[in-house]
Amino acid sequence: MPEDSMDKPSIVTCTAPVNIAVIKYWGKRDEDLILPINSSMSVTLHQDQLKTTTTVAISRSFQEDRLWLNGKEEDITHQRLQSCLREIRRLARKRRNDGDARATDSVGLSHKVHICSVNNFPTAAGLASSAAGFACLVYTLAQAFGVEGELSGIARQGSGSACRSMYGGFVQWIMGSKEDGKDSVAQQVEPESHWPELRILVLVASSERKPIGSTSGMQTSVQTSLLLQHRADAIVPRRMVDMIEAVRKKDFPAFAELTMKDSNQFHATCLDTHPPIFYLNSVSQQIIHLVHRYNKYCGETRVAYSFDAGPNAVIFTLQQFVPEFVQLVQHFFPPDRNGEDFIKGLPVKGAALPMELKQNIGLEPVPKGINYIISTKAGPGPRVVDDPSEHLLSAEGLPKKTV
Amino acid sequence: MPEDSMDKPSIVTCTAPVNIAVIKYWGKRDEDLILPINSSMSVTLHQDQLKTTTTVAISRSFQEDRLWLNGKEEDITHQRLQSCLREIRRLARKRRNDGDARATDSVGLSHKVHICSVNNFPTAAGLASSAAGFACLVYTLAQAFGVEGELSGIARQGSGSACRSMYGGFVQWIMGSKEDGKDSVAQQVEPESHWPELRILVLVASSERKPIGSTSGMQTSVQTSLLLQHRADAIVPRRMVDMIEAVRKKDFPAFAELTMKDSNQFHATCLDTHPPIFYLNSVSQQIIHLVHRYNKYCGETRVAYSFDAGPNAVIFTLQQFVPEFVQLVQHFFPPDRNGEDFIKGLPVKGAALPMELKQNIGLEPVPKGINYIISTKAGPGPRVVDDPSEHLLSAEGLPKKTV
Repeated sequence: MPEDSMDKPSIVTCTAPVNIAVIKYWGKRDEDLILPINSSMSVTLHQDQLKTTTTVAISRSFQEDRLWLNGKEEDITHQRLQSCLREIRRLARKRRNDGDARATDSVGLSHKVHICSVNNFPTAAGLASSAAGFACLVYTLAQAFGVEGELSGIARQGSGSACRSMYGGFVQWIMGSKEDGKDSVAQQVEPESHWPELRILVLVASSERKPIGSTSGMQTSVQTSLLLQHRADAIVPRRMVDMIEAVRKKDFPAFAELTMKDSNQFHATCLDTHPPIFYLNSVSQQIIHLVHRYNKYCGETRVAYSFDAGPNAVIFTLQQFVPEFVQLVQHFFPPDRNGEDFIKGLPVKGAALPMELKQNIGLEPVPKGINYIISTKAGPGPRVVDDPSEHLLSAEGLPKKTV
Repeated sequence: MPEDSMDKPSIVTCTAPVNIAVIKYWGKRDEDLILPINSSMSVTLHQDQLKTTTTVAISRSFQEDRLWLNGKEEDITHQRLQSCLREIRRLARKRRNDGDARATDSVGLSHKVHICSVNNFPTAAGLASSAAGFACLVYTLAQAFGVEGELSGIARQGSGSACRSMYGGFVQWIMGSKEDGKDSVAQQVEPESHWPELRILVLVASSERKPIGSTSGMQTSVQTSLLLQHRADAIVPRRMVDMIEAVRKKDFPAFAELTMKDSNQFHATCLDTHPPIFYLNSVSQQIIHLVHRYNKYCGETRVAYSFDAGPNAVIFTLQQFVPEFVQLVQHFFPPDRNGEDFIKGLPVKGAALPMELKQNIGLEPVPKGINYIISTKAGPGPRVVDDPSEHLLSAEGLPKKTV
């Protein structure tokens, strides 16, 4: 049945990572193109622990573009999603018109797509999934339509920080200066293999209330904070240079101090917003105190924290310091359940906590302040999944099961 | 017994007020002279509710300078206290040398002083008492030594914000530019009678831990916050002009918005400090949300908050809005005890709280988050207490009783 087989969708599945900014992105100079008021830098987290998986199916038999997110069909007319679809199709058309063989061989540009996407981490964890989600969408669409080359500028139009999830390791998003945003793209500073000792712990906090979203939050900040523009103009450029140098040299204390200062300055501009925005709660404050007191006790900077527009703390440290610090976290945030499933991801060895250290920290334990820890490290960028059994869409282009 | 009577101390008692900054002072350009990096502005609170009382006794028979604070003898060699004593004695000497009759008639400049000081509010309330304390010390010493004229520059050397407590009503502290600090003095912008409708509520918060002191806090901020200097140079000068205009015009919305923005910006610079300083806790955040949501519900700015280097919230509003707002505070911070002694100071009428308003605020009540409310208004500057029975020191120059 040749006609039938012609109608079979062309299916591709990819995965993409979460990234954590160490020099923060907060504020757009162009809302539609998603152009930032400052450059930013991030570490790409390993997909073994945190990733988005997306399957794209293209078929002449599809009646319309459709989208399923985490098992639920969603409205595909969402403006930013449409931007990404439109840009990928535009690039594919350009390649075909330019006579690129691969693009010409590819599926029909007028065909509709089915998109199915899932995260391997619970949405309730409050981890910003839009970066991994849009990076994965753009990467997978590009594969499906046979588009290659610089794609971070398209991912950026889905969600600003998504452009940084297009690369592994240590990534900068260069703000650019062009009005059309063509030079506002991500670039890898160093690959994930560069700093194997670096470890990342996501402390998933229990949050009482949903904080204000980053899109509207940064909009209000741009409009009202008198400190934000000064930060963007006078502070971040220097910090980008210093951060890139710290990463290149694997200078952990320099990397850690900059990371903490920049996280705090981002939250300072949120507080300078009118009305003020609070992302740090009492558990966040306790984590901040814990890190500074631990470093002070050690006489060197062994641990850094970073907080995004949500309640989770991201901890950066070196492999050798993980066991003791995790033990410390468990001591000052006694978990609900018993030890083991408190730590997910990369295994963490046990460690004894010196009495002197506990006393020196001098904080009141906050039971259940942290739900669990995801132990991870820097990881690679988006990947194609070769095994067809991993497709989220069936041969008919519909979700295989409720995922 | 003429000799005996010559040995009787000369005794004088004065009171001085607390003040609340609406444009914040944070950061010194000179630690010894206490010269600020920006001008600031405050409202002097009424002494009927909050005041320091100080008695100074001078006698040739005293062996040494002595000091009692809230019933306990304290070390008088404290550097800032010595600055104030030295400056007052210097002025007195200058006056005598200049042939001023009053100064010449006055007590011997070589005589020792006994100083006794009490607050009419509990130290545990966490209200900054150093401003009222040093203002009262300097004012009372000046009376005792027959010194007149500009004294705020001396009070400033005791505690920066004390210079603003030397005047009633609405007071600015002009930062000055001279190296010797001679032009860094307080000035009354408007007297307390200028805006009789203005009301002030101090929400005394229950605090778990003692926050970092303002002296060392602002020192660390000056050294580490990249936002603080920008605030001082580029933001505060304009805000001072706008705030003075708002007060002169009794433009409550303008006054309120500036007050909130400046409080938040001060705390933003604290967060931008390394390590970061937190004065706002979860109760403070709840109060901030409550105020913004109430104003939004009302469709106009009826209430403003301001937070200093401690957990208490200071609320500014107009007389007509006090009953409803106090009711709202009681609803969202249900007090431990029964209604009446929750509110101290100026009486507050009862008010019904529309169900729609409560629902619209949409916050989860925090039981016992606020200990009590002090209801007050703008008040006069330091005063001499004429009634000798009010002296805190006996005719022998010793504390009358454990106060």
